[in-house]
Amino acid sequence: MPSVRLDLDPSLRIDDYRYHHTLRVRFAETDAMGIVHHSRYLPYLEEARVEYLRALDHPYDALRAEGVDIAVLEAYVRYRQPLRFDELVTVHLLMGSATRTTFQMAYLLTVDGQPRATAVTVHGCVNGDGRPVRMPTWLVELATS
Amino acid sequence: MPSVRLDLDPSLRIDDYRYHHTLRVRFAETDAMGIVHHSRYLPYLEEARVEYLRALDHPYDALRAEGVDIAVLEAYVRYRQPLRFDELVTVHLLMGSATRTTFQMAYLLTVDGQPRATAVTVHGCVNGDGRPVRMPTWLVELATS
Amino acid sequence: MPSVRLDLDPSLRIDDYRYHHTLRVRFAETDAMGIVHHSRYLPYLEEARVEYLRALDHPYDALRAEGVDIAVLEAYVRYRQPLRFDELVTVHLLMGSATRTTFQMAYLLTVDGQPRATAVTVHGCVNGDGRPVRMPTWLVELATS
Amino acid sequence: MPSVRLDLDPSLRIDDYRYHHTLRVRFAETDAMGIVHHSRYLPYLEEARVEYLRALDHPYDALRAEGVDIAVLEAYVRYRQPLRFDELVTVHLLMGSATRTTFQMAYLLTVDGQPRATAVTVHGCVNGDGRPVRMPTWLVELATS
Repeated sequence: MPSVRLDLDPSLRIDDYRYHHTLRVRFAETDAMGIVHHSRYLPYLEEARVEYLRALDHPYDALRAEGVDIAVLEAYVRYRQPLRFDELVTVHLLMGSATRTTFQMAYLLTVDGQPRATAVTVHGCVNGDGRPVRMPTWLVELATS
Repeated sequence: MPSVRLDLDPSLRIDDYRYHHTLRVRFAETDAMGIVHHSRYLPYLEEARVEYLRALDHPYDALRAEGVDIAVLEAYVRYRQPLRFDELVTVHLLMGSATRTTFQMAYLLTVDGQPRATAVTVHGCVNGDGRPVRMPTWLVELATS
Repeated sequence: MPSVRLDLDPSLRIDDYRYHHTLRVRFAETDAMGIVHHSRYLPYLEEARVEYLRALDHPYDALRAEGVDIAVLEAYVRYRQPLRFDELVTVHLLMGSATRTTFQMAYLLTVDGQPRATAVTVHGCVNGDGRPVRMPTWLVELATS
Repeated sequence: MPSVRLDLDPSLRIDDYRYHHTLRVRFAETDAMGIVHHSRYLPYLEEARVEYLRALDHPYDALRAEGVDIAVLEAYVRYRQPLRFDELVTVHLLMGSATRTTFQMAYLLTVDGQPRATAVTVHGCVNGDGRPVRMPTWLVELATS
């Protein structure tokens, strides 16, 4: 087991998630296998996290303006079925499994309700120099609620 | 634990790896935190895999010409210390943990011998339509040797 | 003048364009200068082209299914003011200046109505092998109307 | 003509350039047309510029440490023949056409000596806030020599 921290097991059931964000696959994100390159899923997860924070009235921009960045400590993706150009991908997400300095998020990516990928990311808050800082209270509450 | 397959635990000791490939961080790979964006590590791992196959006299191009692609089924990265613009990153890698249709690779990324990240990828061979095919014999032997 | 073909001069007046598409800057698209990396504008233009074709009832997917790809022959971008993370960017576009085998598009990128960049792309239709083919009639008509 | 500044006409003759840098196409840089995505050429040009400055003993890192960034004001690429996965691309470059605050670079991209693309970029020096600053003397001398 490659990590001591990553421990969420992302569900394949859409109802198990709290938020979703839909985006469309760009041609620039495909590769010569005709499918979305595996590295391109991580920006999809990031875009969904940013929209989630905005929906919670804690836009990431405001966090950054306070000198707090949310660093990615670990990332895991399981590619179940390929994504293709122009598909509408829904990223379902759920925050969970928090400690005082880290939290995890689970993701399910679907197209027309069918699972295409699952993922987990582990995050910590850092300051402008990249040093760990305590998470904002609302974030701790969110992760443990 | 989010996966039934990913089971390699990447070592922090350079000597535990069989091959290494060095590349330089591009400015285009950094983000507004001043460090390499976390999604950009996956193409580094891919570049190292491609060079490894070339070093083994089984260039990926030749594989693709035979109609075999190596798909990424799972990917895991642990970001230990950031990578920065212009740094020379050495990707150490090790193939292991094969089944008849999948194999795993473990990675250690270092700068000046210091660990920056570890990673694991799980792969399967597919044909031009993305359907699983049996791995070439040399690949099975390599993964189990 | 580096090209014999690129000849559109993109206007700074929004009203001079026929279509617009709005997208939000991803964190993954920023660089260590804290702004969107200059290479990331081209996928924005591409996304706007794809949405324009969809709005015209000629989705790019359908074109590709007929074996026709729209290749980029030339691209020019003038970066006037930087784009930043999370900004909503509106890409205004206009098709023009067609020949039998090529057409050009002009672009104006704005945030809150203020110009950030202008651009021109030159395109040709190609088949699956990348060989030039005649443009579909509707595309010629569009470009010359 | 879309720009008042971009005026270099990149030659197709390798001998007309002063410096070259070779890189290998990554799989992650290809798209579903099986060729390198057109947006991916700009990081190639950037990588070549960075290596050129290093070869001149003025590494870009040192510039940035002094608070000077080299911004891209305009970029133009002409795609003559596609680039493909695993190809070794040589980027030939030439600095020219400087003013007190801007300079231009011309590029020729070749594979096995055959032209694949030409390009021009226009640059200005900016400080950490993105405001234009005077170019370092060595850079002016280089551009006008």
